Amino acid sequence: MSLRVGIVGGGQLARMMIAPAVELGLDVRVLAEEPGMSAAIAATATGDYRDLETVRAFARDVDVITFDHEHVPQDVLRALGDDGVAVHPGPDALFYAQDKLRMRAKLAELGMPQPEWAAVSDAAALQTFIDDNGGRAVVKTPRGGYDGKGVRVVASADEAADWLDALEPGAELLVEELVDFSRELAQQVARTPSGAFRAYPVVETVQRDGVCAEVIAPAPRAGERLREMTERIGVAIAQGLGVTGMLAVELFETTDERVLVNELAMRPHNSGHWSQDGAVTGQFEQHLRAVLDLPLGDPAPTAPWTVMINILGGPVSDTLEARIPAALAAHPGAKVHTYGKAPRPGRKVGHVNLVGDDLDIVVGDARVVAAHFDD
Amino acid sequence: MSLRVGIVGGGQLARMMIAPAVELGLDVRVLAEEPGMSAAIAATATGDYRDLETVRAFARDVDVITFDHEHVPQDVLRALGDDGVAVHPGPDALFYAQDKLRMRAKLAELGMPQPEWAAVSDAAALQTFIDDNGGRAVVKTPRGGYDGKGVRVVASADEAADWLDALEPGAELLVEELVDFSRELAQQVARTPSGAFRAYPVVETVQRDGVCAEVIAPAPRAGERLREMTERIGVAIAQGLGVTGMLAVELFETTDERVLVNELAMRPHNSGHWSQDGAVTGQFEQHLRAVLDLPLGDPAPTAPWTVMINILGGPVSDTLEARIPAALAAHPGAKVHTYGKAPRPGRKVGHVNLVGDDLDIVVGDARVVAAHFDD
Repeated sequence: MSLRVGIVGGGQLARMMIAPAVELGLDVRVLAEEPGMSAAIAATATGDYRDLETVRAFARDVDVITFDHEHVPQDVLRALGDDGVAVHPGPDALFYAQDKLRMRAKLAELGMPQPEWAAVSDAAALQTFIDDNGGRAVVKTPRGGYDGKGVRVVASADEAADWLDALEPGAELLVEELVDFSRELAQQVARTPSGAFRAYPVVETVQRDGVCAEVIAPAPRAGERLREMTERIGVAIAQGLGVTGMLAVELFETTDERVLVNELAMRPHNSGHWSQDGAVTGQFEQHLRAVLDLPLGDPAPTAPWTVMINILGGPVSDTLEARIPAALAAHPGAKVHTYGKAPRPGRKVGHVNLVGDDLDIVVGDARVVAAHFDD
Repeated sequence: MSLRVGIVGGGQLARMMIAPAVELGLDVRVLAEEPGMSAAIAATATGDYRDLETVRAFARDVDVITFDHEHVPQDVLRALGDDGVAVHPGPDALFYAQDKLRMRAKLAELGMPQPEWAAVSDAAALQTFIDDNGGRAVVKTPRGGYDGKGVRVVASADEAADWLDALEPGAELLVEELVDFSRELAQQVARTPSGAFRAYPVVETVQRDGVCAEVIAPAPRAGERLREMTERIGVAIAQGLGVTGMLAVELFETTDERVLVNELAMRPHNSGHWSQDGAVTGQFEQHLRAVLDLPLGDPAPTAPWTVMINILGGPVSDTLEARIPAALAAHPGAKVHTYGKAPRPGRKVGHVNLVGDDLDIVVGDARVVAAHFDD
């Protein structure tokens, strides 16, 4: 009988696990939030991932549960564990992905390089942190943020007054130093329940309006010192937090050649989409292998450079699909991935991967292909 | 709305179209012969592909119909065409894949190099052909054969007496020269309804008991003359027969440096499975692009060598799936593909792809990986 993998969440990350699951011969099943989502082709159940009985029924006949996102509540995760279900990543690890304050505290304990940070619950404490850190800071709601949501750059505590007022008793906001970074990087690591791990090459990510726009793999101008440092950070976090499956560590590279941990994701991640077409083992296959405790695959790139460009929003004047012929015609090596999602401003609806030997050419060509999906 | 592709037949070729279809954002649907087949995850209908109303109902809401195999009857194909359904490859092309005698006659008309051949309907004519061609010959039933079935090497007409006796009035057997070949090659070409085409590098195929066992891509010791010759043959046949989608031309390379056309397949083919992990555009993605009349992708190899080894039969003592961990552990670059089929002696139940720079090492390593699926 095939190994059965249950994925909670029907978004594009679940969708992109389907191709390698089918190739490897896994029996892949998805609990989607609603009908017609990105991963609908593998959806065997529809329902609310916050409802224990819904998730429990879905998990009853699979070998492992994994996730499209990190939002399944701790009590649901722990109840599955009590039922004897293999859950990867497990609740102890996901705890840190679900709460950025806990994450900062744990990374401090592990000695990881981080921006200056503090937990604040009132305007005075927030203002003090701002004043102590150059007059500006980044305020984050510890839970529920993604793609720039729940993140605000402020110059005074007043600008976060609504968030402070809305805090439950005992709750806190995370405030971080506004890092003077030269660029953003991402380090991915796969880790199995048995403790085996594999690190991907560090990549450069380019964000626009808080959303990943482009990725270059491997990161240009990344010397051995930087590569070893980011890999050591990724592996230390994967091990220290007990992550199983794919871990992405988003990093700031500072103007003074340090790297600081920005965010964590415990699942396949946008910064790793390049690996579908540019690595021996893509991150979606690797995640499945990791959560099933199978031997991990080689994460090495298959070409000198791979560039990934997100399709953000997509065309309004016609459909994404209508643009595919022109996009494919623009370059015979272009790999176009779409997510089966309706276009909406800023929404991630697909991406383009392109590999090659000359970075400037690959970047230029990839942008030409991706531009066919703009309005 | 996504482009909708309907695949008739639920075998492994349909299954392997699912991954690229999902990546590209196509709406892929399969008419499977029965429940639980290889392509079950995308099966939206179950029924007999020989029954017009079954196929017609399946074809009603797709943009194009394509195939897992060449066995859909001509009257069904033509009725779909009359309904206005886009069918690729179309009945005129498939006609030649369905009848080896018609194929030989058409290839002769196109001036393609072939083994000596004849159509025979009685023992005397067959014996004459055998006597004229060195005392041995290959007899083939024109229809319905695959993987060595419907093919018999004979030294006398008596050895085909059962087939001759079973011939319908007016029907004939195909008899071919037993070619003194040094090795077997395969040339794949993709062609769109608009007439665009792309040729893959010629590969070497190794058959055991009439079934493909290994493929080396590109074919070793293939000089420019040979490569140009096989490409010219592939393109001429694709154009001459009006093939749309993937065409595979199986070839004999003779000891006197000629190539002769052995068989044709108008669909993705076992000789092209290497391209899933060893080419910029795999044959399953290319087939979908071709039948949808989308721009074709680059068929170039991504590494110097790719080796494909079929998993034939699979283990009897336990399941295929139980062998996956050891197989993956044997090489971090091994790509294991399984088809969701029950093991049975000689049955194609999966394959292993491995790429690398040194052919001897790649062949050796791929065999070590694949051997984990033997008993």
